[in-house]
Amino acid sequence: MTVTEDIRATLSGIREEVARLHAELPRNGLVVWTAGNVSARVPGADLAVIKPSGVSYDDLDAESMVVVDLDGNLVEGNYSPSSDTAAHAYVYKHMPHVNGVVHTHSPFATAWAARREPIPCVLTMMADEFGGDIPVGPFALIGDDSIGRGIVETLTGSNSPAVLMAQHGPFTIGKSAKAAVKAAVMLEEVARTVHLARTLGPVERIAQSDIDSLFDRYQNVYGR
Amino acid sequence: MTVTEDIRATLSGIREEVARLHAELPRNGLVVWTAGNVSARVPGADLAVIKPSGVSYDDLDAESMVVVDLDGNLVEGNYSPSSDTAAHAYVYKHMPHVNGVVHTHSPFATAWAARREPIPCVLTMMADEFGGDIPVGPFALIGDDSIGRGIVETLTGSNSPAVLMAQHGPFTIGKSAKAAVKAAVMLEEVARTVHLARTLGPVERIAQSDIDSLFDRYQNVYGR
Amino acid sequence: MTVTEDIRATLSGIREEVARLHAELPRNGLVVWTAGNVSARVPGADLAVIKPSGVSYDDLDAESMVVVDLDGNLVEGNYSPSSDTAAHAYVYKHMPHVNGVVHTHSPFATAWAARREPIPCVLTMMADEFGGDIPVGPFALIGDDSIGRGIVETLTGSNSPAVLMAQHGPFTIGKSAKAAVKAAVMLEEVARTVHLARTLGPVERIAQSDIDSLFDRYQNVYGR
Amino acid sequence: MTVTEDIRATLSGIREEVARLHAELPRNGLVVWTAGNVSARVPGADLAVIKPSGVSYDDLDAESMVVVDLDGNLVEGNYSPSSDTAAHAYVYKHMPHVNGVVHTHSPFATAWAARREPIPCVLTMMADEFGGDIPVGPFALIGDDSIGRGIVETLTGSNSPAVLMAQHGPFTIGKSAKAAVKAAVMLEEVARTVHLARTLGPVERIAQSDIDSLFDRYQNVYGR
Repeated sequence: MTVTEDIRATLSGIREEVARLHAELPRNGLVVWTAGNVSARVPGADLAVIKPSGVSYDDLDAESMVVVDLDGNLVEGNYSPSSDTAAHAYVYKHMPHVNGVVHTHSPFATAWAARREPIPCVLTMMADEFGGDIPVGPFALIGDDSIGRGIVETLTGSNSPAVLMAQHGPFTIGKSAKAAVKAAVMLEEVARTVHLARTLGPVERIAQSDIDSLFDRYQNVYGR
Repeated sequence: MTVTEDIRATLSGIREEVARLHAELPRNGLVVWTAGNVSARVPGADLAVIKPSGVSYDDLDAESMVVVDLDGNLVEGNYSPSSDTAAHAYVYKHMPHVNGVVHTHSPFATAWAARREPIPCVLTMMADEFGGDIPVGPFALIGDDSIGRGIVETLTGSNSPAVLMAQHGPFTIGKSAKAAVKAAVMLEEVARTVHLARTLGPVERIAQSDIDSLFDRYQNVYGR
Repeated sequence: MTVTEDIRATLSGIREEVARLHAELPRNGLVVWTAGNVSARVPGADLAVIKPSGVSYDDLDAESMVVVDLDGNLVEGNYSPSSDTAAHAYVYKHMPHVNGVVHTHSPFATAWAARREPIPCVLTMMADEFGGDIPVGPFALIGDDSIGRGIVETLTGSNSPAVLMAQHGPFTIGKSAKAAVKAAVMLEEVARTVHLARTLGPVERIAQSDIDSLFDRYQNVYGR
Repeated sequence: MTVTEDIRATLSGIREEVARLHAELPRNGLVVWTAGNVSARVPGADLAVIKPSGVSYDDLDAESMVVVDLDGNLVEGNYSPSSDTAAHAYVYKHMPHVNGVVHTHSPFATAWAARREPIPCVLTMMADEFGGDIPVGPFALIGDDSIGRGIVETLTGSNSPAVLMAQHGPFTIGKSAKAAVKAAVMLEEVARTVHLARTLGPVERIAQSDIDSLFDRYQNVYGR
């Protein structure tokens, strides 16, 4: 796949946005070293922009971002794409409404993932943002499309934009890369808060009808 | 309701103050993304200044602040008011001595709220600032005046400037917006410290007479 | 007591140092809002320099610092002295080798204080810095010399430069204000680490002979 | 041992790098005050560059770094070498493939060390970076080569670049000083995440064959 001229104009803005959004990861305590990545679909092309492999967050800029096709192959860039590229690409290929994907090992979300335990919907903020429990995906090894398939199978038909991949960590999706980053930030916040709540005693799930009405309002009336 | 000329001069200073106080929320670890808000009553008018909806803390300034009446309707501003405006407005309408309101989902306070458990008064700092246990308010859905009523009913007659709304998060009040922000900061600090204390064993409530004398001294002798 | 001319020269440097050391408190996560204070003895005079009451850490400078006598009375300054001045002054009056005092409500240390539980000496770093367990002082109300007496009685004859005042928080002492600040920082670090260790299981106290030899080496051979 | 002219050119770059890498320690929350140190082997000489003793991270620069021989004796520098120098030097002397060593008391790793409990390999990220459980070394007092021997004996034949010295804290090694710093950062991250996971329930070790294939891929295919 080559990059056509009309796509090239779009690409420049997306590279900028994806580079800028990566700064939200360390800023919100979601990553250490280089262990997390953001990608965005390129509208009108079977392409995505993603973090280069092994580059520190301080050194990321629009130019260092990498363009890949939806099989995860490098199309354009001075670095190798993130080792998680195959999972991002699989999501774009199989979930056409998704335009942004984020992967981190944020500690509280990953702690739930380590126990293979969904985060129960016990906070109104969770009902708003996730529309129910945050589900656990399968244990999958890197190297083929297992991780991508696990994400897609778990999130298809779910309200939640976040999945906890078993003994690995979270992936979040969104209508835009910014929405996927917001989901990653809110996920860690609710993973932390429910962890803290459960440390000192049981917590009650919110009634399903209340979850549904909160989620509906937040997604529609509130206008996100 | 319209904004008269003599109110307009006051408003400008209040917009500045409310914008500046919002910076204390992320600085003190009380919020992520846009999930918290500060408001201030406009003296001499049935108005309040509050955070616009969905604007990030980095982008808040005096100009972006929104003016609402005490039914929560927009009076002046370039953005929609925070989705929590109805709760703030209800408090100003029914608690005339309150001039500032803060809402966050700060994680330790929200963890107590998730368990619907009051924070017991086990620290001299809690006796000073809160004058007793920090109470839990009812579970209430957004969309009508349930949250506002829950805050007012729980805090009326209580020493505490903070209420933990069940499975939602804290609201704090004050004689000024700055005092309400201070209460939100101190609330999270005591919520955290008592959480940590209780993780490794039981803690003893301070004797009521000692709580009363500490609170009285702090509020009167110490001159706050 | 008045400030003589030869003391005045010394005072200026001490005001600078005490102001600068206050910045270490928020920087190391020991305080929120205005809830902690540092003081230093003025050599050659029965005086100490301490934080003014209710001033935020951002606004502290050499000029805003307050000079008090060893009964805690204001001698010089534009603000009231910290409400904890009586405790600091009592320590200087009764422990002539102490030249710096720090008080915070740092959360992990205060959590141990809330349970009235000494921190057991289970880390080599604790043996180095504290020479044994970190002791708990009595429950004491502010307003007379109870807190000061509790500190002095608990620390007299102890290796530890830190005491956990019951259901209140830590005080640390040092040969200099900087040493007392270091003790406050190290105290919170060991309070946190031992808290974390104990959360998942029991920890073994280091043998007394090893504690003694580590403490002796650190204080003497290592040259602190 | 003296410093020859061709070594001198190399030394200048290593001093720069070691000074710069120290900034990663406080930035990643691994140390407070002066309680951690980084060293690098000087290629082509039986020398290492290490942190001076008792100097704060803000004041470290290339010039303040200290050169020692592999028995830990000072060769060049304006300060005394770190009190942990003997342990670093012992590692360089006995593990010729190691070119960087880091020591911290990072709180979560030290909490596991306090319980003398290895961190079980329950996360894919641990399999990638550590190739199995993170082992505990013996309890050893400072002052002779006990700590150095404990590190070398525990890490020889292990995949892990990190050892938890009992009731003391972690040491990490690497092919470069930067790799050892990365190991220290990743260690604290997995120590924290597994701590959080275990707080609310049991976690399952990843199957040995999966650990082996993840470690092999990360070290070889992924190209680190």
